[in-house]
Amino acid sequence: MKRSFPDTSMNRRSFVGGAAAGGLAGGVAVRLVSTEKHDAPELGSPAPPPQARLFTFSGGDGGPWSVVDSRAIVGEPLPAVRRLDIANSPTHTAPPGTVWSLRGVTSNARYITRAEKDDLVAKQAELGRTEATLAALIPIRKSAAWWSLPQDERRAIFEERSHHVKTGMKYLPAIARRLHHCRDLGTNESFDFLTFFDYARADAGAFDEMLAALRASEEWKYVDREVDIRLVRA
Amino acid sequence: MKRSFPDTSMNRRSFVGGAAAGGLAGGVAVRLVSTEKHDAPELGSPAPPPQARLFTFSGGDGGPWSVVDSRAIVGEPLPAVRRLDIANSPTHTAPPGTVWSLRGVTSNARYITRAEKDDLVAKQAELGRTEATLAALIPIRKSAAWWSLPQDERRAIFEERSHHVKTGMKYLPAIARRLHHCRDLGTNESFDFLTFFDYARADAGAFDEMLAALRASEEWKYVDREVDIRLVRA
Repeated sequence: MKRSFPDTSMNRRSFVGGAAAGGLAGGVAVRLVSTEKHDAPELGSPAPPPQARLFTFSGGDGGPWSVVDSRAIVGEPLPAVRRLDIANSPTHTAPPGTVWSLRGVTSNARYITRAEKDDLVAKQAELGRTEATLAALIPIRKSAAWWSLPQDERRAIFEERSHHVKTGMKYLPAIARRLHHCRDLGTNESFDFLTFFDYARADAGAFDEMLAALRASEEWKYVDREVDIRLVRA
Repeated sequence: MKRSFPDTSMNRRSFVGGAAAGGLAGGVAVRLVSTEKHDAPELGSPAPPPQARLFTFSGGDGGPWSVVDSRAIVGEPLPAVRRLDIANSPTHTAPPGTVWSLRGVTSNARYITRAEKDDLVAKQAELGRTEATLAALIPIRKSAAWWSLPQDERRAIFEERSHHVKTGMKYLPAIARRLHHCRDLGTNESFDFLTFFDYARADAGAFDEMLAALRASEEWKYVDREVDIRLVRA
């Protein structure tokens, strides 16, 4: 008899309301229903179970987003496709005509401080606003050199020297964002992160300005593959 | 036509020699063969591709370790088994008689500083020494409250207030360790981490002392499931 033990994962993380997104673009704060053991404080958004955090981006002939441009910024491009489909289900099957699929999970933030998190939560917008008719999927991979750095050096490059959070913050709430992690899925994924953004047509210039600032930063020296896919709601 | 793009992952992280373990018990430092783009410095151990980082621990009737004790420290126990098998292959199939399987990937360290990393690399031992006839598999899950904390607060609890690294360091090189992450596998795993240790019979008391110190720390207030499985080489 084999048991695979997805046993209590759903229970332990049950909470009121919908899923809260991970990454820098965290969702609304919801409170735990269950009492935490050991008097652990109930702070911020509880993490949804991993299956609920898995997103699949499929490039092909289907989905609500039309691809208007796709280009490699560093490294290999992705094959050209007409449409992008986004699924948030572990039992997802790629739509007919899918050319490529990229998967990632929303997770806990890895670099931000309490002050930065509070600032982000106060200012950020949710994906899916009616006026956000433009979007971008930007898959990124960082070098082995990046991943071998200790946490303090990664943080120093990420924020103290590259101002990643500070730069992103300037464009809130205009640019909404969700970060998906691919690096620890246990399979050979083509990227370490999938970043997805949406914004109104009037903010397209601001979005390009934000990307230019990030790409000029020291952190981006460690990006060894990046593809920039621009989308319009179909 | 569907392509799944495990394309360049193997190439970009190719390196001389064997795989270097992730987590706090990192392996030997190996140098990259490929030239990093953008002059990114080549520091420490490059990350092996994710499939090479996936480990499966199967409790049942097979494997090189005999289970001598298994008890829940917090939360639900795991069903009793006679043997433990450990596999480091993505195409692994559980041996006959498997009762439960736990999976995790070695990954980059999440909390340590450069000074701590250098200290660890200088002092730590590899798993598998001839004299290390005892071992322990300790799967751990942390609460939603832990995962919702920003990085600076998790680091402060982990090290400044709980002395996780400093405590572990006292027992090097006697206790060898490898950390496996389950949290971002994209599936509903029962634990967030799998920690595996091995040590000589003479160090069994030191191992228990180390665990007692960690379990008494503030960090452990956020552990909401922990099972302690003791092993002897069969």
